[in-house]
Amino acid sequence: MKQAVQAIEKKFFNYIAKMKNYEEALALIGWDLRTGAPKKGIKQRSEVIGTLSEDVFNMSISTEMKDYIEALTDPSVQIYLTDVTKRSVEECEKQYNQNINIPANEYKDYVILQSQSESIWEEAKATSDFARLQPYLEKLIAFKKRMVGYWGITENKYNALLDLYEPGVTVDIIDKVFGQLRESIVPLVREISATGSRPPFDFLFCHFPKPQQQAFSHYILQQMGFDFEAGRLDETAHPFQTTLNPADVRVTTNYNESDFRLAIFGTIHEGGHALYEQNISHKLIGTPLCQGTSMGIHESQSLFFENLLGRSREFWESFYSPFKKYANGAFDRVSLDDFYRAINIAGPSLIRIEADELTYPLHIIVRYEIEKGLFNGDLKVKDLPGIWNEKMEEYLGIRPSNDREGVLQDIHWAGGDFGYFPSYALGYVYAAQFKHAMLEDSPSLNKSLIEGDIAPIRQWLTEHIHQYGALKKPIQIVQEATHESLNATYLIQYLTKKYRGIYRIE
Amino acid sequence: MKQAVQAIEKKFFNYIAKMKNYEEALALIGWDLRTGAPKKGIKQRSEVIGTLSEDVFNMSISTEMKDYIEALTDPSVQIYLTDVTKRSVEECEKQYNQNINIPANEYKDYVILQSQSESIWEEAKATSDFARLQPYLEKLIAFKKRMVGYWGITENKYNALLDLYEPGVTVDIIDKVFGQLRESIVPLVREISATGSRPPFDFLFCHFPKPQQQAFSHYILQQMGFDFEAGRLDETAHPFQTTLNPADVRVTTNYNESDFRLAIFGTIHEGGHALYEQNISHKLIGTPLCQGTSMGIHESQSLFFENLLGRSREFWESFYSPFKKYANGAFDRVSLDDFYRAINIAGPSLIRIEADELTYPLHIIVRYEIEKGLFNGDLKVKDLPGIWNEKMEEYLGIRPSNDREGVLQDIHWAGGDFGYFPSYALGYVYAAQFKHAMLEDSPSLNKSLIEGDIAPIRQWLTEHIHQYGALKKPIQIVQEATHESLNATYLIQYLTKKYRGIYRIE
Repeated sequence: MKQAVQAIEKKFFNYIAKMKNYEEALALIGWDLRTGAPKKGIKQRSEVIGTLSEDVFNMSISTEMKDYIEALTDPSVQIYLTDVTKRSVEECEKQYNQNINIPANEYKDYVILQSQSESIWEEAKATSDFARLQPYLEKLIAFKKRMVGYWGITENKYNALLDLYEPGVTVDIIDKVFGQLRESIVPLVREISATGSRPPFDFLFCHFPKPQQQAFSHYILQQMGFDFEAGRLDETAHPFQTTLNPADVRVTTNYNESDFRLAIFGTIHEGGHALYEQNISHKLIGTPLCQGTSMGIHESQSLFFENLLGRSREFWESFYSPFKKYANGAFDRVSLDDFYRAINIAGPSLIRIEADELTYPLHIIVRYEIEKGLFNGDLKVKDLPGIWNEKMEEYLGIRPSNDREGVLQDIHWAGGDFGYFPSYALGYVYAAQFKHAMLEDSPSLNKSLIEGDIAPIRQWLTEHIHQYGALKKPIQIVQEATHESLNATYLIQYLTKKYRGIYRIE
Repeated sequence: MKQAVQAIEKKFFNYIAKMKNYEEALALIGWDLRTGAPKKGIKQRSEVIGTLSEDVFNMSISTEMKDYIEALTDPSVQIYLTDVTKRSVEECEKQYNQNINIPANEYKDYVILQSQSESIWEEAKATSDFARLQPYLEKLIAFKKRMVGYWGITENKYNALLDLYEPGVTVDIIDKVFGQLRESIVPLVREISATGSRPPFDFLFCHFPKPQQQAFSHYILQQMGFDFEAGRLDETAHPFQTTLNPADVRVTTNYNESDFRLAIFGTIHEGGHALYEQNISHKLIGTPLCQGTSMGIHESQSLFFENLLGRSREFWESFYSPFKKYANGAFDRVSLDDFYRAINIAGPSLIRIEADELTYPLHIIVRYEIEKGLFNGDLKVKDLPGIWNEKMEEYLGIRPSNDREGVLQDIHWAGGDFGYFPSYALGYVYAAQFKHAMLEDSPSLNKSLIEGDIAPIRQWLTEHIHQYGALKKPIQIVQEATHESLNATYLIQYLTKKYRGIYRIE
């Protein structure tokens, strides 16, 4: 019996490895398209993407896959299976069930609709014309609702969408966590605005030559523990991170000579994602578990490095001195204290991707409440611009003067991505929990950081998070690393203490 | 009947397009591996290459492919087929026959042997130890002989190998052409050596900063008509050109600040390959004809641009002035005449890839005669170093002092590439024929070139060669473009006139 099971297991993993090989080719194509692929070749490249994606999709719902799932979920064989096998089968089964019931024709129409909608969004945003996009959003939402129906879900459809990005995290949980955040952050932002003061920050826009920014980006990644023999750093219009395999993890950033923050914090943010991927156990290569376990946990790693570490006073205690050298002396007259306060300026703003760490969760809460209304309530697409502006005014105290700065600013909805936004704010919540737990485990970590040694911090993250890839689910990761479940308290404490300090509120 | 044939034709081309999509993904992976893919990720990437190559191979010998070939080679359907279909089927049939008869196990062993042999070659070359490589070469040659046997060929096995790279060009043809070359070039090289003079050339090693070389490489490619929206230029240790599709053609070069020739002539050479690929008719995308028709015709395009054009007096009449500007004035005191003579210095040397255009064909003839002896005669692998050195002495008048500078210098044989070398010299022969025909057609082309206008030359090449891809076979291309068959006379005339001029031989 045991041998027979092992034989099936082996064939199953060979099958999965082949799917992962197609996915690795797709990841390289995606990276290449964003780092300088010649424009005219893109049309033909999309045919290649079509072929490889179809292979992956067909393999995910093949009879062969069905047979593996049936054989390996049979109660009698469980005692012979490793955790890696069990979780891999579980992931494949989830994918199988998601894909098998959607009529092929309908899915194809959806993919076409999605791509049309994304290009209409560009036009609609440019002209601030929500009505252009409205019919596309209506069709996309109708498809998503039908899709959830195909999965057999009739109540609380939004939960099914959340589960795609953050398995196990439901509307009930998010309502509670986001409610706490809103109740604490909204008054804190008001307090800051009420001080009427703003730290000096003009020096942020000093000229910082691109080659020097490149060198400093490289230096910072190295200090973070990024392995340049298992990854690379390139330049793109928008920073991103992509994984071909754990030994080939690629980061990009963008250089603005009049505002170093884009490159440096972009590099640190994407570097946080990259460390997660580089440190997944190589035993998981070729399995569906060889990736971050959820969008939220992934974002916790990038936000931890970008903000909780990269915008901390402790970090710059040691890194401000090399920073000044790389900047060719442009910051020599700026004190560490002024620098620290300037990179942490906070206050209400309209655009999510330009928001600071304090107000950022409020931007997400606006989107979450709207998505919930669309899928679980009776919110209509045509009412989105109005409700958007109302919520912005209520939570942030400012109101967009047009939809380009309002409901049209993000591509996500036009691409059919509903349920994705909450992950960004969950990432902050997780990150603050991890920081707290890390300092409980090793109170000396802050001292190491002040001395410029990030290694022990990276090691804690690898030990408790990175190495497991998707072997553990997000809730399990948080529970085991912090000994409690999702808890907004630490983020609230962190933000309150930090921003009261910066704005000198007693 | 016609409709039924068209239905099969359509399915056939969909099938081929899918194979081409896998090949495009493989081409991107190959480019990426040579332009900075992180070292540690390579092991896993080779699994991806394995999966995609296996797909292509399996599709080339599938029952489905067999059925298409049978249906579309049936005499009764020929009247309904376009030339593109007929030639595509012919190519697929050739591939099918090549692949189907080789036992799968034996082929797998061969691939492993090949990769072992290539790494042994590196060691053997480094230590100049031919005995290390000898057993691998013996096995590779034995496999190649068996392979030709599987194809049903018993006599003149070397012809079968030549046909892989230069369809239709046989030992009889090459014997004649290479014989003529040898009889003319050997005495010409002796005449030059006998003059005892060498044009001044020290200035070639002036400092030419890398960013300036990059800018000039970019400029030259643009002047040649390379479309940067359908291609890109990168840096690698060894220059190469690769095609993802005709709208994504990539060139690389290498920069040496103490010898600009590597980058500039490398760029022009690879640019010649790239122009061929960019100008293949887009109607051939997705067919097996969307590529250069043979190695020799491909090399004719790179050598035409690198030497017949890029080392001509006419070319530098107009391009020397921008060249001097890009070189920051380093060549301002060098006359055009001195520059022209210096970039055309010729004379016997040991290493093929460093040889000048005059002696280069002799390096190829040495290799051709040895390959012919191995496959059609009774030359033994153990005798290779001796026979190599004898031939070098006979044709070039110099003798390697060790095998590193002799028989071990090239990777080709260690990689199992027998029959490939002749293409390089055939490329020269074709290039000179094309130049002659081009000037017959439009005597004003030299004048355009002197004025810095390469466009009419590129257009002639596209009209007569590039656009057809592999729709026409090499011999047909030459016949139709030049109104005669393979003919060494034009290369001999060109070399004789040029080098007698440079070395001032009456």
